[in-house]
Amino acid sequence: MKKKAVILLSGGLDSTTVLALARSQGYECYALAVSYGQRHVAELAAAQRVAAALGAARLQQMQVNLDAVGGSALTDRNIAVPEAPVDGIPVTYVPARNTLFLSLALGWAEVLGARDLFIGVNAVDYSGYPDCRPAFIEAFEALANVATKAGVEGARFKIHAPLLTMSKADIIREGARLGVDYGLTVSCYQADEQGRACGRCDSCRLRAAGFAEAGVPDPTPYRG
Amino acid sequence: MKKKAVILLSGGLDSTTVLALARSQGYECYALAVSYGQRHVAELAAAQRVAAALGAARLQQMQVNLDAVGGSALTDRNIAVPEAPVDGIPVTYVPARNTLFLSLALGWAEVLGARDLFIGVNAVDYSGYPDCRPAFIEAFEALANVATKAGVEGARFKIHAPLLTMSKADIIREGARLGVDYGLTVSCYQADEQGRACGRCDSCRLRAAGFAEAGVPDPTPYRG
Repeated sequence: MKKKAVILLSGGLDSTTVLALARSQGYECYALAVSYGQRHVAELAAAQRVAAALGAARLQQMQVNLDAVGGSALTDRNIAVPEAPVDGIPVTYVPARNTLFLSLALGWAEVLGARDLFIGVNAVDYSGYPDCRPAFIEAFEALANVATKAGVEGARFKIHAPLLTMSKADIIREGARLGVDYGLTVSCYQADEQGRACGRCDSCRLRAAGFAEAGVPDPTPYRG
Repeated sequence: MKKKAVILLSGGLDSTTVLALARSQGYECYALAVSYGQRHVAELAAAQRVAAALGAARLQQMQVNLDAVGGSALTDRNIAVPEAPVDGIPVTYVPARNTLFLSLALGWAEVLGARDLFIGVNAVDYSGYPDCRPAFIEAFEALANVATKAGVEGARFKIHAPLLTMSKADIIREGARLGVDYGLTVSCYQADEQGRACGRCDSCRLRAAGFAEAGVPDPTPYRG
């Protein structure tokens, strides 16, 4: 019987590559898409396409209303998504987002009997977001083993962050090798309802540069 | 100006006492009530009464659909709430619940500029729930300081668990000293819509025994 894993899946380029990697490592993949009042609902439709295309055993959607808390351009419509590079941690940072995502993944993993959690944080995000660094992943893994019934009873949870030290181009090359169709994915912070990208936000710029550097044709649908 | 604190408030006896304690320590209190598909929606009405009675600066309600995941008598209607003591971790354990609650509190704290989080885990829960132990609180505090922009920039988050080593009777005595009206609170795992308690579940039995041991009159409304 295959080992189960829970994969955090946003429907973007990174998490889709992680799902393909987990599958290639032989895991039965349970994909978790968290909706948190973000602007890019198109990502959730992408997560459904991706989960189906990559043979996930299940796609579970969970909702939490982070828009009630705000504090980020991704949850508060009054904060504009930046269209030029910024110094420091950008306004698209969502306070404690990956802590929340991993908490939900951990609870589901415990119910499923899975011990392996996959999250698509990477070195490019590292430069901006605190919860995309190795220290964060290590701290959450330590927490998981004292926070759960399974952990207290001796199970060891493992937080896999296979993209951590990869550049965007590396990620795209790896996904292409695994046969990922990146045309299914949505990375744009302000994609329209059809999933078409703006081509101007941080996320679009990183993605486009990644395809160029990887020498892989960019299948992203851009609007207008 | 008062220091801000985020208080996880379920509307039960323990978290209400924690709110009263935080207030008595001079904090401006931001109460967070998380609705997670639990059976006892009466708790949320209790949280509103308690937040008003104890002068919270705000009560924020957040919702997350843990019922989609199940795995606990508190989130899955197909699992019965036990009415007799059990050995080990009871079926009312909700996988990773306090990790999730503290994640939500941490995100809100970062938005508010608060560095102090209060949670009402205690020694009685300790015996059953893994995420009510000192090791869990310490691990989450370590995580908070690497998971957030504020932490990375040098702020120190503190997770306060003032009930950790207190018995139920101790908690009730402390609350009574602070003038808490426990008639406003709901602890029962299967309270009815008017907030009346069953008197039979684990939580009811612990609570009733606590009032008896503390020598404080029990104001709990019981049904039938």
